[in-house]
Amino acid sequence: MNDDALRYAERLVPRSYIDLARQARRSHEQQIRQIIEHRKLPEQPLEEHVIEQWINEMAQMDSNNFEGNVGVGEREGRIYSSLVARRHSLLSHGIGRSGDINAIQPKAAGSSLLNKLTNELVLDAIHALGLRTITHAVVIPMATGMTMTLCLLTFKKQRPQSRYVLWSRIDQKSCFKSILTANLEPIIIEQIENNNYLQTNVDEFEKQIHKFNPHEICCIISTTSCFAPRAIDNVQQISNLCQKYSIPHLINNAYGLQSTKIIHEIEQAKRSNGRIDYIVQSTDKNFLVPVGGSIVLTYDSKLFDALSHAYPGRASITPTTDMFITLLSMGKKGLLDLVQKRKNLFNLFYEKLIQWTKDNDEYILSS
Amino acid sequence: MNDDALRYAERLVPRSYIDLARQARRSHEQQIRQIIEHRKLPEQPLEEHVIEQWINEMAQMDSNNFEGNVGVGEREGRIYSSLVARRHSLLSHGIGRSGDINAIQPKAAGSSLLNKLTNELVLDAIHALGLRTITHAVVIPMATGMTMTLCLLTFKKQRPQSRYVLWSRIDQKSCFKSILTANLEPIIIEQIENNNYLQTNVDEFEKQIHKFNPHEICCIISTTSCFAPRAIDNVQQISNLCQKYSIPHLINNAYGLQSTKIIHEIEQAKRSNGRIDYIVQSTDKNFLVPVGGSIVLTYDSKLFDALSHAYPGRASITPTTDMFITLLSMGKKGLLDLVQKRKNLFNLFYEKLIQWTKDNDEYILSS
Amino acid sequence: MNDDALRYAERLVPRSYIDLARQARRSHEQQIRQIIEHRKLPEQPLEEHVIEQWINEMAQMDSNNFEGNVGVGEREGRIYSSLVARRHSLLSHGIGRSGDINAIQPKAAGSSLLNKLTNELVLDAIHALGLRTITHAVVIPMATGMTMTLCLLTFKKQRPQSRYVLWSRIDQKSCFKSILTANLEPIIIEQIENNNYLQTNVDEFEKQIHKFNPHEICCIISTTSCFAPRAIDNVQQISNLCQKYSIPHLINNAYGLQSTKIIHEIEQAKRSNGRIDYIVQSTDKNFLVPVGGSIVLTYDSKLFDALSHAYPGRASITPTTDMFITLLSMGKKGLLDLVQKRKNLFNLFYEKLIQWTKDNDEYILSS
Amino acid sequence: MNDDALRYAERLVPRSYIDLARQARRSHEQQIRQIIEHRKLPEQPLEEHVIEQWINEMAQMDSNNFEGNVGVGEREGRIYSSLVARRHSLLSHGIGRSGDINAIQPKAAGSSLLNKLTNELVLDAIHALGLRTITHAVVIPMATGMTMTLCLLTFKKQRPQSRYVLWSRIDQKSCFKSILTANLEPIIIEQIENNNYLQTNVDEFEKQIHKFNPHEICCIISTTSCFAPRAIDNVQQISNLCQKYSIPHLINNAYGLQSTKIIHEIEQAKRSNGRIDYIVQSTDKNFLVPVGGSIVLTYDSKLFDALSHAYPGRASITPTTDMFITLLSMGKKGLLDLVQKRKNLFNLFYEKLIQWTKDNDEYILSS
Repeated sequence: MNDDALRYAERLVPRSYIDLARQARRSHEQQIRQIIEHRKLPEQPLEEHVIEQWINEMAQMDSNNFEGNVGVGEREGRIYSSLVARRHSLLSHGIGRSGDINAIQPKAAGSSLLNKLTNELVLDAIHALGLRTITHAVVIPMATGMTMTLCLLTFKKQRPQSRYVLWSRIDQKSCFKSILTANLEPIIIEQIENNNYLQTNVDEFEKQIHKFNPHEICCIISTTSCFAPRAIDNVQQISNLCQKYSIPHLINNAYGLQSTKIIHEIEQAKRSNGRIDYIVQSTDKNFLVPVGGSIVLTYDSKLFDALSHAYPGRASITPTTDMFITLLSMGKKGLLDLVQKRKNLFNLFYEKLIQWTKDNDEYILSS
Repeated sequence: MNDDALRYAERLVPRSYIDLARQARRSHEQQIRQIIEHRKLPEQPLEEHVIEQWINEMAQMDSNNFEGNVGVGEREGRIYSSLVARRHSLLSHGIGRSGDINAIQPKAAGSSLLNKLTNELVLDAIHALGLRTITHAVVIPMATGMTMTLCLLTFKKQRPQSRYVLWSRIDQKSCFKSILTANLEPIIIEQIENNNYLQTNVDEFEKQIHKFNPHEICCIISTTSCFAPRAIDNVQQISNLCQKYSIPHLINNAYGLQSTKIIHEIEQAKRSNGRIDYIVQSTDKNFLVPVGGSIVLTYDSKLFDALSHAYPGRASITPTTDMFITLLSMGKKGLLDLVQKRKNLFNLFYEKLIQWTKDNDEYILSS
Repeated sequence: MNDDALRYAERLVPRSYIDLARQARRSHEQQIRQIIEHRKLPEQPLEEHVIEQWINEMAQMDSNNFEGNVGVGEREGRIYSSLVARRHSLLSHGIGRSGDINAIQPKAAGSSLLNKLTNELVLDAIHALGLRTITHAVVIPMATGMTMTLCLLTFKKQRPQSRYVLWSRIDQKSCFKSILTANLEPIIIEQIENNNYLQTNVDEFEKQIHKFNPHEICCIISTTSCFAPRAIDNVQQISNLCQKYSIPHLINNAYGLQSTKIIHEIEQAKRSNGRIDYIVQSTDKNFLVPVGGSIVLTYDSKLFDALSHAYPGRASITPTTDMFITLLSMGKKGLLDLVQKRKNLFNLFYEKLIQWTKDNDEYILSS
Repeated sequence: MNDDALRYAERLVPRSYIDLARQARRSHEQQIRQIIEHRKLPEQPLEEHVIEQWINEMAQMDSNNFEGNVGVGEREGRIYSSLVARRHSLLSHGIGRSGDINAIQPKAAGSSLLNKLTNELVLDAIHALGLRTITHAVVIPMATGMTMTLCLLTFKKQRPQSRYVLWSRIDQKSCFKSILTANLEPIIIEQIENNNYLQTNVDEFEKQIHKFNPHEICCIISTTSCFAPRAIDNVQQISNLCQKYSIPHLINNAYGLQSTKIIHEIEQAKRSNGRIDYIVQSTDKNFLVPVGGSIVLTYDSKLFDALSHAYPGRASITPTTDMFITLLSMGKKGLLDLVQKRKNLFNLFYEKLIQWTKDNDEYILSS
């Protein structure tokens, strides 16, 4: 209903009541306008029905939902099943174009707006979580592993002579395979034991860099999240090595965004002028959405463009929409509350465990 | 998103694409504006997502959905289950006020608008179906039987001395009980057989009117829809009797709106200056919605007000919402197509049956 | 998926994983089986998706949802709009039959089961709330006012000579109109002031009973919920009068179920052998569902049958479905938590108010 | 409701009515059992509510939806927003494991079943569309371009010395970029003009194979769908070359499944013992779902495994669920009807166009 429609509505319902409703509408509209204008998360959560309504509005900006639209090309966004259409709020064009995953689609102004805006809100969320100098964030509709492969392929294109990826061992198949799938060769650096933890063997990293020519090294991957006794990698020192030897640095931050300790480690690496190219994290583990998306962060617009251009063709908008809904459902407050809650639960758990270990003559391996 | 929001969106998506979307939005908004302005069914169906979006917009005009709303009274429209809230598109205030089922609710401008507008669209649909001089239509959130009772109670209040309802026998419990529940006494007039049909015994009606003083008769009920061999009542002659003796006339038109023959019969009654007070029909049987609502039609605003005022308290908005969705999903075209389709199916069926009866030496009883 | 289907699924997914799922299914199925078997509210809430799935299963038990079903009669439950169908979980037959609002529909086993079961769960909820000797509860798909009218009409049918309703004045149109709509005459008994409250003038009630012959009195209505300074009616003494003079007693308990004080008053009335025929309450005010339904309680199966039989024809299942979802979403625990929360909020509010009145030299009128 | 629950339901609703419902349930259950048993598309469409119910049942087989489930690991499938949860029918685990995109997830029997079964149904659909000897089909939750890259990377891993991709020029960025992103070098073979079409220059392909050592060639890509005047590639002769020189053959069949001509061309290539490794097609263009998925077909289980193993980590289940819903909403009949309808529309269009060209002295370039 536009203003005219509301004016005619005054013939059916007294103006004073419509005026109250107008005020409420305006309040919702202001919220939305502000989010688009400032591209910042709202402090407080938006109500679910407001978010849903907004997505529907954006869907109606896509040409497949124009009244009287008849699609004749091959990409007119037709959906056969009305159940599928509803699951996707009638969004069918996906994101990106053949040239660029971040490109605008002329036929899909709504999907394009949703995509652009979500990436801006993710960036704001990342800042709120503590990575304050990140300049670019993008939701990639592939899970962490495949997105790591995409980042590696992007590096490889820029360093065609390189073959190796240096990697502090972690017993998780997914990252290992992301290197193999990129047809690169992982050089596995074993950790050193220290105080019952397995910690990054930075010296060995440097030795291996010398062993292979730095130009032969496609990148170094550091890993923030893992199971004890393996500790979080020494991101700071690795980033300093990368800076020193001009080797790209890819951080596998799969479920690190909720941990203030990991955030702090990355921030310190950046402040000490270490080199960080891409930071990859899962959307599901950090923002509690279904599996299927990841977020890539960079401090550099060229790196951002390189990645965007590397992705061939269009892609699903679903992980983006999930992030849009979730971030607005949280608001900045809800997001930070989750971090705090995790901290509290960790402490609670830790205290109980420490007591138990004392009583049972055991000790805790923790990272 | 208001115009400001769209202007800021141009910073994320090129203006030319946003302009296309603006045009599409405007087209939807025009449709809606026109419906509110002219209170007429659109010729063509509206798409489901447009209807849904519109209902959501109206729901947001109700105070329970205002941002930051905290309900403290007893009627603040709180809904416990989010599943229930969704089923009702967040509409929770119902329709009407203690004084009048058709009254506006100050706290629920959206529900009130939905209610008022639906009744206008129903009126337009009734005109399109052929009852062209009806002046008032109202969706009552009770099925036909209980609504008949409400009409009878309304008559009774105006004719406190009356006790009897004259009624051409029909073997259907619901209407019979609607008389008993109103604590009135049915005078059953048996049909006369004519040409294998059972037809209204108009002479007997007149005899009974004389037998009881007309002032003792609360109303006459005529029935349009029934199973063979009982024919449709002679609405025209009954309405003439009602006119002659100043007796209210209630038509039980339960599933008659889809039949051009029945519509014609009622129209003729009106044109011959017969008396018709209320015409009651089911929403489910005529408009294919779930059981639970009925429509009352009148030619007289005093009668309309009497009925509205009779209903004590608020009532469910669900049958109204179902009618709103269904009428807009049909458009005038879809509504008339249904009538035509019924006619075609009837003819197809009739031809096959007539052939079969000839082959088998049987004959058809039809009304 | 039945057991056979799951067995074939083991060819696609290892048996051990399917077994875990079987166990989880069984746990859900046990919950549902127990609810049907014992007809008691579960202690803990059921998850929304379990409730939704269950309703869908019941909907598939209705003939309109049978595979290959073609409806040819007038009541085959066809729904035109898929949006309307979804809002109603494909339930379209409503409840009741022409003879009885509580009757089973042969074509709608699912709707009938949902209706019967909900009424049993409502009864259990009523017991949990403290009205422990109630024997019959029924959700009526009309709001409180119209349901009061239906109760009055039921009394009137049994007491055809009666004309009056005795009623302790309350300034609320809805109840007053429910008497007028039943074409009965309200005898308004003014309250007496006592300790700043307006309390039931029981002596005046008895005087009026004497003034009119008790047989002329259709019933007495007592009211539990109202705004200060009018106090809750003295239900106990009114019920004793009703017992003494054999006059039906209808309690307007619109929003009384959440108040332990009101519940206590009704329980005491019953224990002191007072007469209570019907207790009417709103579903929305007591159980936080959208406006549109009410609950009638009785202690007597004949009274219950009389009311069921009075309702002419079928009726909407929506208020019943809303109650079903809400009660299962609450569980007994959630229901009692609401009562406790209300008490706590009342106390909190009262304390602050009492302080404020002292500071400002005012006092509180409360019921 | 299990059988026990239904037995207890007989205490609320007469057994004979429950029996009718049992029969209807059984009919739905048989359909589902047969689909799981035979892994074939049903001939007729399934109704939407049956499909939705079935997906919900599978979702309840995932551990995150087990009653009382508390997730403590990092992959417990938690979803923050209930709106997001509903969009995904509570499916949150995605598909695959770190080792294999086609692997079963122990914690997600339902998602795994949905995934496995969908791939089988897609295979059956592919057979129905005419590619009768395909042995493996898999839905990949990435659009065509990125999936092409994944196939190329899989080839490259097996042919580490290879560097080139031979490709009959097509002016479409997406495929070109999929080669670059895999860090391979496209060798572009210009078409030859023939009868106004641009056709595959097979001789030039053979010349280039000789020019580069076949071992240096990672694969040949043929393209089936394109815009006039470029004709569909000569898949048959290319596949013969691939066979002769032992070079992998990747068919970019983006929107070819709906075209009987293209299907025929691929079938002929296979029958003439040509070599075809992977055939990649879009889910949206062929099956009318939102952008985001593709289907890879092979005739060889080793190739299938190689691709499955190449994908690192888990992935979105959304494109799979969309395909599951769509295929069951179509049934085999609906799928073949679409192909026929396309043919009819093409002919209609062609005839009108041919007339117009005659009238206007123009001619048609068609592939």
